[in-house]
Amino acid sequence: MVPLEVLQALAEKTPSKIVLVVVDGLGGLPNPATGLTEMQTARLPNLGALAGKSVCGLIDPVGPGITPGSGAGHLALFGYDPIRFDIGRGALSALGLDFPLQANDVAARMNFCTIDDKGVVSDRRAGRIPTEYNRELVEELRRIKIPGVQLFVETESGHRALVVFRGENLSDKLTDTDPLLVNHPIKEAEPLTPEAKHTADIANTFSREAQRVLKGKHPANAVLLRGFAKHPAIPTFEQLYKLTPAAIASYPMYRGVARLAGMEALTTGSALADELATLRANYANFDFFFLHVKYADTAGEDGDFDRKVRVLEEVDGLIPGILDLKPDVLVVTGDHSTPAPFKSHSWHPVPFLLNSAWCIPDNLPAFNEVAVRAGSLGRFPAVDGMSLMLGYAQKLSRYGA
Amino acid sequence: MVPLEVLQALAEKTPSKIVLVVVDGLGGLPNPATGLTEMQTARLPNLGALAGKSVCGLIDPVGPGITPGSGAGHLALFGYDPIRFDIGRGALSALGLDFPLQANDVAARMNFCTIDDKGVVSDRRAGRIPTEYNRELVEELRRIKIPGVQLFVETESGHRALVVFRGENLSDKLTDTDPLLVNHPIKEAEPLTPEAKHTADIANTFSREAQRVLKGKHPANAVLLRGFAKHPAIPTFEQLYKLTPAAIASYPMYRGVARLAGMEALTTGSALADELATLRANYANFDFFFLHVKYADTAGEDGDFDRKVRVLEEVDGLIPGILDLKPDVLVVTGDHSTPAPFKSHSWHPVPFLLNSAWCIPDNLPAFNEVAVRAGSLGRFPAVDGMSLMLGYAQKLSRYGA
Repeated sequence: MVPLEVLQALAEKTPSKIVLVVVDGLGGLPNPATGLTEMQTARLPNLGALAGKSVCGLIDPVGPGITPGSGAGHLALFGYDPIRFDIGRGALSALGLDFPLQANDVAARMNFCTIDDKGVVSDRRAGRIPTEYNRELVEELRRIKIPGVQLFVETESGHRALVVFRGENLSDKLTDTDPLLVNHPIKEAEPLTPEAKHTADIANTFSREAQRVLKGKHPANAVLLRGFAKHPAIPTFEQLYKLTPAAIASYPMYRGVARLAGMEALTTGSALADELATLRANYANFDFFFLHVKYADTAGEDGDFDRKVRVLEEVDGLIPGILDLKPDVLVVTGDHSTPAPFKSHSWHPVPFLLNSAWCIPDNLPAFNEVAVRAGSLGRFPAVDGMSLMLGYAQKLSRYGA
Repeated sequence: MVPLEVLQALAEKTPSKIVLVVVDGLGGLPNPATGLTEMQTARLPNLGALAGKSVCGLIDPVGPGITPGSGAGHLALFGYDPIRFDIGRGALSALGLDFPLQANDVAARMNFCTIDDKGVVSDRRAGRIPTEYNRELVEELRRIKIPGVQLFVETESGHRALVVFRGENLSDKLTDTDPLLVNHPIKEAEPLTPEAKHTADIANTFSREAQRVLKGKHPANAVLLRGFAKHPAIPTFEQLYKLTPAAIASYPMYRGVARLAGMEALTTGSALADELATLRANYANFDFFFLHVKYADTAGEDGDFDRKVRVLEEVDGLIPGILDLKPDVLVVTGDHSTPAPFKSHSWHPVPFLLNSAWCIPDNLPAFNEVAVRAGSLGRFPAVDGMSLMLGYAQKLSRYGA
């Protein structure tokens, strides 16, 4: 890994343009019936042809054997080592909702849950209540008053919401109230440093008040708080790479991570054709584009092999339109694997393809988990992807005399 | 490399089981007569079939070009970076002899040597005296008395022995007395910190007393002290990975390193069939097994190409019995290469094979130094093997939000 400080010293502003296509949950596993992965099953003529003219490899987003969360997977692709830049869940939720988190705020992910008469959690997701009902409950929780702090509660979706405490001397060094297991009581938030005692008291007061307000509701009669976090201060793409970056993503979470890196989150529809139109309309105004394709991950999480195959085929259809723009560097990869047979994010390495006029082509016959093994990039940490993109885009000056 | 602190935070106790087979000195070099390595020459039908269904690669135990000692090679496979966890030679000698090193002890490797009338070293190994003669000399050295410390001297083998000083306020921050070159005098042990002055005085007194006691003996008339070390405190598999590990190894040194990592060193015969029987008998009681095969290394050190081939074929015969136990993860690798044509440990990378139900198979036709180059794991630091094993065994929770 090239240290960010070194990239920063070498980075130069140039007219060249980079397009990074992140297919969320790209990597898969063989379908037991055929022995072929989703990528091997899909008809990907454009990606296959591109692989022949590109350099390819396999990335480990966080490290070998480690299953990445979506935030960590994206940070790695943006060049931020996710182990050095460990962004709390609360901050990611706030970013995802466009909540203007201030320096003094502490945010937490808040999940509605179901507790029994004795306060024991029977469902950590309150039967995945609909978002509309979530909004009604959030209205009620907003009436809670805690002396000395200002309180914000925001609906995310389903059973998920955000709570933000604003006040003096707040700390995010707290443990979660989520027991992580059913049939266990809601935990107290515990301070991890003496300075965090005050914030732990506030979090525990909120947790109790929420139970009082929600008493008698069903199935959401309590809340679990996870990932207390302040606003993460990370250097931006402009500061690090001298890039003027834009994000084309419709899901709040990815727009949030992109904004954290200093990207402008463009207004876009969520269909792939909309995203391509957004790219085209804004192509003159930026020199780095992060284009996010959500639905491969969703299909993988649902265990729907065929739907994931169809999403990949849709992505393939996007390629000619992107190539028409003649980007200096085009990368197609994923933030992690979400194999449909595994129905979840996994630790498997993710295919990575980089196309530029300056490639010695790997001449691979296809773009999938198996074909890219023979690629010249080998297996490498995802965080190296950023220096590769900058290098092939001729945005890095020579290192050393 | 994933920091141990991160693995520790992600590790979860689960019922899945991992079997790590370490073939000591596994990697080899081509036989000049055939151009084939020991692994390529051996008939390995079971390992070949397994490679077809597994993910493979090449590991560097310490780093590219670095020849590992056995302790370092094993520590790396257990996930401990051998550069961070630099276990002193004295401590490894003590572990290897099952010497119960206490927290206050300082141990050193002691080599018998030959000095001339002027105290200049003429042979650093005293003509590699036989072990039996070593024992006689050790008996004599045990009569040395040094005020304020208790002294232990133990035969290892050949010219090699262990000395342990037990007492208050001892330090291992000392330089060696071994000049490392012949025709140089024995050195004084020098303290590297002010606190180590007392221990340096003790070591130098012992060095002089040993010359007095051995005066007139031939060829072993003095001793060289190397690698002063206290008991290394390293976090255990239980603390780091939430594993309940067992070691199946008959040689004291490997049992010692395994115990250092908190493994239970099971009683076992030294034949491979005995080791398999031990694995079978204890399979229900642990979730991680380190099974050590010594004799490939011995044959390599002896330069006996054909005998190393036969040992590898014996290991191949072990595989069906291990697979019968249906481990969730099976790894076959080595702690370093010991090519028979080289007659010594070497720096060559070592083949690594990982089998689990969650592999995208590499479809390799064989398991050897050349075939595994096409494997999806690529070439990687051995210390990453542990996060891969934990990942494929689904013992790591998701990293980040």
